[in-house]
Amino acid sequence: MCLYKGAGKSIMITVTVFVFLTETVFMKKAGNTKFRYQNIADELEGKIRKGLYAAGDRLPSVRALCREYDVSMNTVLQAYYQLESKLLVESRPQSGYYVAASADRGTEIPETSNPPNSVVSDKGEYIIGEVYGRRNSTEITYFSMGVPSPELLPVSGLNKSVASALRKDPGSCTGYEDIKGNQDLRRELARRHFHVDGRLKSGDLITTTGCMGALSFCLMALTERGDTIAVESPVYFGILQLARSLGLNVVELPTHPADGLEIDALKPYLEKGKLKACIVVSNFNNPLGSCMPSAHKKALVELVEKYDVPLIEDDLYGDVWFGDRRPETCKSFDESGLVLWCGSVSKTLAPGYRVGWVAPGKYLEKLVNLKLFHTVSSNTLAQAAIADFLEKGRYEAHLKRLRHTLHINSLRFRQAISTFFPEGTKVSQPSGGFVLWVELNPSIDTFELYTRALKQGISIAPGRMFTLQNQFNNCLRLSYGMSWNESVEQALRKLGELARSS
Amino acid sequence: MCLYKGAGKSIMITVTVFVFLTETVFMKKAGNTKFRYQNIADELEGKIRKGLYAAGDRLPSVRALCREYDVSMNTVLQAYYQLESKLLVESRPQSGYYVAASADRGTEIPETSNPPNSVVSDKGEYIIGEVYGRRNSTEITYFSMGVPSPELLPVSGLNKSVASALRKDPGSCTGYEDIKGNQDLRRELARRHFHVDGRLKSGDLITTTGCMGALSFCLMALTERGDTIAVESPVYFGILQLARSLGLNVVELPTHPADGLEIDALKPYLEKGKLKACIVVSNFNNPLGSCMPSAHKKALVELVEKYDVPLIEDDLYGDVWFGDRRPETCKSFDESGLVLWCGSVSKTLAPGYRVGWVAPGKYLEKLVNLKLFHTVSSNTLAQAAIADFLEKGRYEAHLKRLRHTLHINSLRFRQAISTFFPEGTKVSQPSGGFVLWVELNPSIDTFELYTRALKQGISIAPGRMFTLQNQFNNCLRLSYGMSWNESVEQALRKLGELARSS
Repeated sequence: MCLYKGAGKSIMITVTVFVFLTETVFMKKAGNTKFRYQNIADELEGKIRKGLYAAGDRLPSVRALCREYDVSMNTVLQAYYQLESKLLVESRPQSGYYVAASADRGTEIPETSNPPNSVVSDKGEYIIGEVYGRRNSTEITYFSMGVPSPELLPVSGLNKSVASALRKDPGSCTGYEDIKGNQDLRRELARRHFHVDGRLKSGDLITTTGCMGALSFCLMALTERGDTIAVESPVYFGILQLARSLGLNVVELPTHPADGLEIDALKPYLEKGKLKACIVVSNFNNPLGSCMPSAHKKALVELVEKYDVPLIEDDLYGDVWFGDRRPETCKSFDESGLVLWCGSVSKTLAPGYRVGWVAPGKYLEKLVNLKLFHTVSSNTLAQAAIADFLEKGRYEAHLKRLRHTLHINSLRFRQAISTFFPEGTKVSQPSGGFVLWVELNPSIDTFELYTRALKQGISIAPGRMFTLQNQFNNCLRLSYGMSWNESVEQALRKLGELARSS
Repeated sequence: MCLYKGAGKSIMITVTVFVFLTETVFMKKAGNTKFRYQNIADELEGKIRKGLYAAGDRLPSVRALCREYDVSMNTVLQAYYQLESKLLVESRPQSGYYVAASADRGTEIPETSNPPNSVVSDKGEYIIGEVYGRRNSTEITYFSMGVPSPELLPVSGLNKSVASALRKDPGSCTGYEDIKGNQDLRRELARRHFHVDGRLKSGDLITTTGCMGALSFCLMALTERGDTIAVESPVYFGILQLARSLGLNVVELPTHPADGLEIDALKPYLEKGKLKACIVVSNFNNPLGSCMPSAHKKALVELVEKYDVPLIEDDLYGDVWFGDRRPETCKSFDESGLVLWCGSVSKTLAPGYRVGWVAPGKYLEKLVNLKLFHTVSSNTLAQAAIADFLEKGRYEAHLKRLRHTLHINSLRFRQAISTFFPEGTKVSQPSGGFVLWVELNPSIDTFELYTRALKQGISIAPGRMFTLQNQFNNCLRLSYGMSWNESVEQALRKLGELARSS
């Protein structure tokens, strides 16, 4: 039975348009639909990376590729534009496309970490004090910062949202709000993260004082002084500081610079039954830049479910992906409510707004009470402003620009490192976020390098900050969350020279 | 030797002016200088309260008082205006001033509490859930609220300060700020509270997520799970919830409705050496409205110094005084750094801004670290806006209006209670803040009264919320932090009727 007259005809047209589109624009590949230009770009990139085309080699002409792939010139040009934006090729007027001299084809990434879990010392704490005790000089290039530079933030759009939030609320945001947090904000967050977990509702979310506030409540809800938790290694030093301030013991687990936590290494600790919680920064981990593949996330959730140990997922970088789409989260595989999914806008919009959140699964009531008892409520205005920013669609537009800038920056930084840094330097290859993990020759002490670099107006984050163990003394974290310009390039060159002379 | 020419002459003039001022406007009394009209008003008020003038009695004429005190008519009229504003007298055209029919001359205040410190139950917690689970109905008169009504807040001035803060900061307050908190705000707070402790500098202060955030960090710094702290009784339920969420045992101490904590009752607990901290709401305690006399504060600080036990002073109502001047703080007697002085603008400006602070004495570093590790930093915009509001002098002007409104309200509420409530009702007589503590006949259960009142559109805070013990079941807290109008008066009348029929 046909409910709508003419429905048959419109379906016919739709099908025709769809077939036309798939034939001419998409290509079917391994179950994914991709734009044709993307496939061409991917194939060329693969050949460059494998060395089939060497630096300076002339690449196939646009016409030749049109014939080879049976596509329009526009499609081929789009492929070349993408490779140019990745700094892999350069166009020469009247001549065509060539493999860029500096194309990043070979810098190795560091190996999986292997934390000793033996000595716990305060050396890292001392270094953190040194590095962050001296902030806010305009003379210094801050590769050590954990937030994007102000010029990458959508300041004027946020100001409009502040004004709009003040207008919308009858009391101009002077009153307390719902204990769980601003309702509009939680509704927008639930909408945005529908793909994370189709079941996530605004009532499942609690807003917090940034992501750190979310982690703090999670650990306070799940642990007591003397308990043990497991983390990746290296790990964001703030997590180590928080854990120690709560009197917790920390097990650091082997972590791969690309794929993140080695799940097999976690298993024996779970078997022993001594872990009260695990924390993973699942997407674009700070400081490694690693991103757990979906299969790993699924396996990790199954594992913690087996041993009934809660998993705190710190996903504050998840929105800054460079690939085709946002990576999944552990939360999306959570059937038992054991995953406490944390996020914030501190790395994408406004660090100083301190707007974060947590979807704490079955620990919801515990966390609501902690929030109420320790803070009464969150800042009303900042949350209402972020809600307005999201409602107006400004966040997506901003993220698109931010991701592009950070992706290009990551490639430029890797390229500069492979050019300027000593032979044998390894560097992570993040597919999102804004930090790189650099491993120098084991003889180089990066805290000593930090001290020398600071005298030249360059601040870096020595690797020793990201562990309680005696490791990563030859590593450093570089933030590329800034506008690329000549002085940034010069600073990287200088840093490379200093490393060479170590 | 005279350093400045003409200095002698100017000193002469200054002395003459001073003598003139003291002779004609001030009167010396017990070491204090007061305006003359104030002395006249005080004497008349004393006579009314003692019953020397009864309701409806004609008071001395303006001319008679001019002769008696040897002052101008203006001075006498000012005295009468003040008594009128306190609802003690009323003027009748062509006839003069009379003692108001409803002048509050006799309602007793409750006696010092006597907590059993035996049973700890969750009944209070259940009642809190009932009372605050159902907020935000415009149909209900909220005598149960712990913050002033929105109409008493300086919303438009705050909005101007938000705009100004956004303009002033190069990054429009999107960035992190100093770990201790906004520097301008801390400087303004240190200036304002110079009288609290001449030595208090901006560097001694840390901003927090409201006063609750300050108390939370104080307890986290000073205690561990299983420790014991001492508090007043009754005490703000948020303090009890916070302590229990941290796994602390709570000793509730006898407290007087006017003078606050009974210091002698604290002594044996200090002697036993089992207390890790004491908390006092020193000025206009919530829910009692008590204010510790300066001598008590001094004695309390000396006592905790003797036993080396830190004292957390919750002074969030201190700016809302009704008398001649701000009451002193325990902090002002602190020689050893044992007093952690906490405050906020949540009760005077904007609850939702979550701007509070603590001057933690010798625990400064511990608290800075807690703030850093658990939140990274506070909301930048809210603090910058409050700093601007203070810098522009808007706070003092607003406080002057707020204090006047609340003072008049407190008198009207007491008057309404003495008129409408059952014989034998006792009520506290706060000299600041915005809550009253009402003690009904022991046979009346105020949670039962709460349930019946809510059906009539009136919300109260039953006394059982303010203790972990089995006490105060016949007490309630009333907030007068709202605009007085007919419907408020009707609600108090209704509440009195309900209490009479209990």
